[in-house]
Order: sequence, then structure tokens, then C-alpha cells
Amino acid sequence: MNGFYERTTKDSINIDPLQTGGKLSEEARRALMEWGDGYSVCDFCPGTLDKIKTPPIYEFVYEELPRFLGSDVARVTNGAREGKFAIMHGIAAGCEKKTIVMDANAHYSSYVAAERAGLNIILVPNSGYPEYRIDPEGYSEIIDTRDDVVLALITYPDGNYGNLPDVRKIAKICRKKGVPLLLNAAYAIGRMPVKMRELKADFIVGSGHKSMASAGPVGVMGMREEFAEPILRKSKKYPAKEVELIGCTARGVTIMTLIASFPYVQERIKRWGEEVEKARYFSKRMEDFGMLQLGEKPHNHDLMFFESEILYNISKKAKGGRFFLYRELKKRKIHGIKPGLTRYFKLSTYGLKEEEVEYVINSFEEIVSQYTETA
Amino acid sequence: MNGFYERTTKDSINIDPLQTGGKLSEEARRALMEWGDGYSVCDFCPGTLDKIKTPPIYEFVYEELPRFLGSDVARVTNGAREGKFAIMHGIAAGCEKKTIVMDANAHYSSYVAAERAGLNIILVPNSGYPEYRIDPEGYSEIIDTRDDVVLALITYPDGNYGNLPDVRKIAKICRKKGVPLLLNAAYAIGRMPVKMRELKADFIVGSGHKSMASAGPVGVMGMREEFAEPILRKSKKYPAKEVELIGCTARGVTIMTLIASFPYVQERIKRWGEEVEKARYFSKRMEDFGMLQLGEKPHNHDLMFFESEILYNISKKAKGGRFFLYRELKKRKIHGIKPGLTRYFKLSTYGLKEEEVEYVINSFEEIVSQYTETA
Repeated sequence: MNGFYERTTKDSINIDPLQTGGKLSEEARRALMEWGDGYSVCDFCPGTLDKIKTPPIYEFVYEELPRFLGSDVARVTNGAREGKFAIMHGIAAGCEKKTIVMDANAHYSSYVAAERAGLNIILVPNSGYPEYRIDPEGYSEIIDTRDDVVLALITYPDGNYGNLPDVRKIAKICRKKGVPLLLNAAYAIGRMPVKMRELKADFIVGSGHKSMASAGPVGVMGMREEFAEPILRKSKKYPAKEVELIGCTARGVTIMTLIASFPYVQERIKRWGEEVEKARYFSKRMEDFGMLQLGEKPHNHDLMFFESEILYNISKKAKGGRFFLYRELKKRKIHGIKPGLTRYFKLSTYGLKEEEVEYVINSFEEIVSQYTETA
Repeated sequence: MNGFYERTTKDSINIDPLQTGGKLSEEARRALMEWGDGYSVCDFCPGTLDKIKTPPIYEFVYEELPRFLGSDVARVTNGAREGKFAIMHGIAAGCEKKTIVMDANAHYSSYVAAERAGLNIILVPNSGYPEYRIDPEGYSEIIDTRDDVVLALITYPDGNYGNLPDVRKIAKICRKKGVPLLLNAAYAIGRMPVKMRELKADFIVGSGHKSMASAGPVGVMGMREEFAEPILRKSKKYPAKEVELIGCTARGVTIMTLIASFPYVQERIKRWGEEVEKARYFSKRMEDFGMLQLGEKPHNHDLMFFESEILYNISKKAKGGRFFLYRELKKRKIHGIKPGLTRYFKLSTYGLKEEEVEYVINSFEEIVSQYTETA
């Protein structure tokens, strides 16, 4: 192995939903170079990572972050999934109840985190094709029939269709049944305005590398005060150390890029309305030449799922078969649709400039007409 | 908050043991800029992070790393502590036995990880002042009297005294009793030659940001084949995803700096003999003017613990009290001894140039004589 490897996608327009919200801000890029060395932030540690005053990690974790998340208490984690696991594991540790209810659109990491925490998992079904909506009553139906539900989880939005379920309604159902609700907002926090308190959830997690313009892996976690004791309980032997965080989490450059991008992220969520308009425009234009956007319509998020019988039919005859689309997009320096996909794929328009949006639409249209003509 | 914060210690000679092994190589610094964006490596993901062929994450995780660690199987984690927790949690999940035996010199994160895994913790005592050695027979005495020990852990070296215990002997005792042994080598892997197989341990963890010239947090974990099933068991619903890793761990720039520094790290461990000589020379010189090095002697690691009655006595009268040492070192651009410490402190000479070693020694000597003269 030789040490240096180029990121060959770096000059492409990247429409992978994983990538559009995690692109570093200029400030984060500077923080990266400044704080790159291993345990860099620990030079300033008074005994616990989040008590560091300069750089202002303490201010970020204890003041800015809870305000931003709309939570009573907040912490930085190694990612959204690590936050979900800490919450699931922490809440289940002192409890006989061992079932978690989550939406069928949940990210795989929610499911796997629950498996890791030893929980029994029940899914609230979605409405199926073409919108895949989550009916809040689905939570009610499951929780009503059981007395072992320790936690409910809802994905806001989900990572397949970009649907934004009615969290307030779900939260109301859960609250009434005495089940705390965890909001997986990995695709929301840092992209769009979202406050745990307003949505009436009890926990919230977000992802720095997915949606907060940070180097990864890093995440955020917020909760209501009453859950701070089980989740953030301290070590018996080391009273400064929180057990579920194994003392410290993002002990290096990741937390510094998160903090560096924070002002930028706070600004950009104010332009969320424009992002939704952009996504809706994109969806409409794609549908104009035969693509079908699945999930909620009109759409409310930059993450969109498309079904394309046209591209699928082309793939059956095209040279290179189902890889033709990847190759054609690559030729046009567009990255983000997995190699081999043609019939179903997701993408994101987040942060794309107007001319980039036009370019991507025109590229799809061009590819379709090019192959339809030759066929 | 304004976004950018300077790392004010970056031009200092840093003798904090946390920092000396985590300083980025030139290759890692380039990787940092190239792969800084959020989920950068996921552009190339075929479904699981460690199956990425270009950049060669697969080759690193499945070929280079097990060879380097002397293990059958290896994985990249979010840090040594996260690796320890995954091992403890994974091995305890399918087992009635719930006690872990670890050395009294264990890092706090070993203890807290075991608390998180719900384990009952028993410590093997050290020999106390001045050497704080771990007697392998201590493991035998505890394991002999109990039938509920699921795992043993030994710290190699420990993070207080830099002692290197007799792992082979401990492993032999554990193997005889049927207890697997976890080697916490966070201060060894990447600094000095260490192979799990040769030391007869069953698990090994290391830290990228502590000792492998990587941005943090990131770590490595190795194990014998027979433990791959409990620790790396797959999700029932998502068969590509490993439950204890919640699918993926270092999904971003951290794994790329680890890989970028790997050739550099493999080279530098060949010079370990020189590092030990340097540490012994430093220890001797410090003792010449009244400091006392605790822990093993002659010393076998760059991490050293000093007792200094002289500095302590000075602190009782000096302006600024016990903070005088920090201030005096700072004035000389030496960082790494926590503010307020004078009587007991640890430091590391790892990677310091000859003239830097001399400069640090002379600075201590100068401070001592300066304050002794004025007194």
C-alpha cells in the first residue's frame, strides 16, 4: 500500500444523498488542517472532552447545541447510529421492557443498533407503493397490544423516500402510552429547521457527516432532562465519565469541523424553503420525460426516490447492460447513483446550484433521448 | 461562535503521551484534505465500508491489518475504547458469565466500557510504589476462585507508568482456565512491534489517533478466528452488516488517514529500539537533578511517570503556586504536562528529535535551578 489515494469523485457533481449535506464548509476545511493530529483537542482537556472551554466545546455542547436541537440536554457522538445505540442501550439497561417500535422506513442502522441493544423490534408498516407513508396510527396499534415497549423510533425524513412523517401525532400517541419517542433526524438536522421540543419527541439524533458539513464520523444527540440520568449516567469509579459515551466520543478533528461548520449550518437551514422548491422543480422536470418520483408528493425534502421504466428498458438492450446509466453519468461528471441501478434510484439536490440542477436534469433527458433514438 | 479556532499548542514541543504518537504523517495530512468531506469514502461503497476496493480499504482490513496485528481477523473501529466495548459486549451477549478481570493499571475507558457492557469488574492489583508492576499470578488468583469470568484484559503498556507486563504469562494462565484475553495495546500498536499471536492473546485493540499517526477518533481491533462469530455476528435482517459495529464504523476521513499513515507507521516501529534508548536517557538525565521516574526500571516505553519533590516544594512558594511549572514550560514552548501538576506527572519522548530531548531536559533543569537559586 502506498499511502495516498485520490478521491476520484471530487470534481463531480455529487447527487448521492449521503454526500450533499456533508460537504465541508470553508471554515471546516481550515479546522481540518488545524486540528488534524490525533487527539488534538485533548491538549486543552480539563478531564472531560465536553468541558473544554478553549476551543469552545463546552459552549457548543452545553449552550449552542441544545438550543439548536430544541432539547434540554445535548451531546456530541460518533454519529447518528452511535447516538441511537447509546439511547437504546441506556434506556433498556434499567428496564424490564425490551421491545422497540420503529417505522418500516427506518434506516438499517436503527434496526442494527436495536439488535445490538438486544431489543425485540416491531415495525410500523408504510402505505406501500407509490408513497410509502407512515401512518401514525400504526404506532398506536402496536403499542396498544403490548406492555413491553421501552422506546419508539421515527425516521424524519427516511433515507429512501425522503418522507417527513407526522411526528407530532406519533409523539402524542407515544406520550399517552408512556413510551418515549426517539427522532432519527440524520437527514434533517443541519439541512432543515427541526426542533425536538416543537415536535414533542423525547430524544433526537443527527449526523455531522451526513447533514452538518462535518468530517466524519460525528453526530449529535439531544434529549429531555428526565432522560439524562439513564442515558448519561456516570461511571461509579470515574465520576466525570459518562458510561454510554465510554467517557469521550468525538475526541479529535471531527468535533472541530462540526463546530467550525456550525455558523454556516445555522445560516443554510434558513434557506430550506428554496431547497424544497428546488427538489420539487427537479421532480417535476424529471417526470416530464417519464421518470416517476415515489414518496410524498408534493415532495418536502431534497432526498428523492425515482422509478424509471424508461431507463430500465434501455438497460435491457444497452451495451454494458444495467451499468450504462452509471457510465453515462460518469462521462458527464455526475456521481451518486450506484453502479447498476436504472429502475429505482435515489438522489439529492441539496446545495446544488441552479445551473447544476439544470445540468443534471438535461443530462438525464439527453441520456434517455440518446438511447431511445438509437433503439 | 465564529467557526474557526486556532490550535495554540501547534508550535510547541508536545510531550503529552496522548499526542506524541498521533501526530499526522505527511501522507495523512494529504489524505485529510482529500477525504475531508463527510461520508467521502462512501462514494465507493459496494454495501459495506470495509468491502471498498478503491481506495483499498478491503485490502487494508482483510490483508494488511491482520498481518500487522498478528491476528486472524481485524476490523477498523471508532477507537480503542469502542473496540474494547464491542468485544466485551459481543462476548458477554451470548454468555451467562458476567465478570471481567483487568489489571489495576487499566485505562479508565477499559473500566467504563466494562461498566457499559454490564460486567462485574475485578482488578488485579499492582505492586504499588515505586514500580506498580502487574504480577501475572494475580490473574490466576482471581480466576481460580470464580466460575463467572467471561474475559480478562491486560493493558500493554498502561497509560500511567508505561509498564509492559508479561502478557505471555498472563495469556498462559488465562488459556489454561479457558478465559479469553484482551490486550489493550493503545500505547503499543503503531509505536512498537506487537503481535497478538506471539503474545498468545485472543483479542487486541489499538488506537489510530493515539499511536498510529491518524486523525481521530479511529482504532483497530484484531481477534482469533473462533471469536469472529460472537463479536462480528451479522444482522438478521441486513446480512452484510455486523451488529457490534452497527454496520460501519470509521466511515470518513479517519480511516483514510489511518491507511495513509500505515506505511509510515510500519517503518517507524522498526526504530523502536532507539525510542526506548531515548526514553532511558531522558529518565536518567531527569533523575540526575532530582526527579524520580516511577514504573519499570530500566524503562521499556516512551511513556514515563515522574515524581518530583523538588518541583512540589518549589510550587509551595512560587508565584502562581502549583501553576508555575505549566507557565514556565509554556514560556519555553513545551506543552503536555497538565496545568497545576508538579509532584507527579507523566510525559512521552516518542518521536522527539535529539535536540528536542536535550531542550526539554535542559528546560526542566533550568526551571529547577532558577527557582532553587531564588529561594
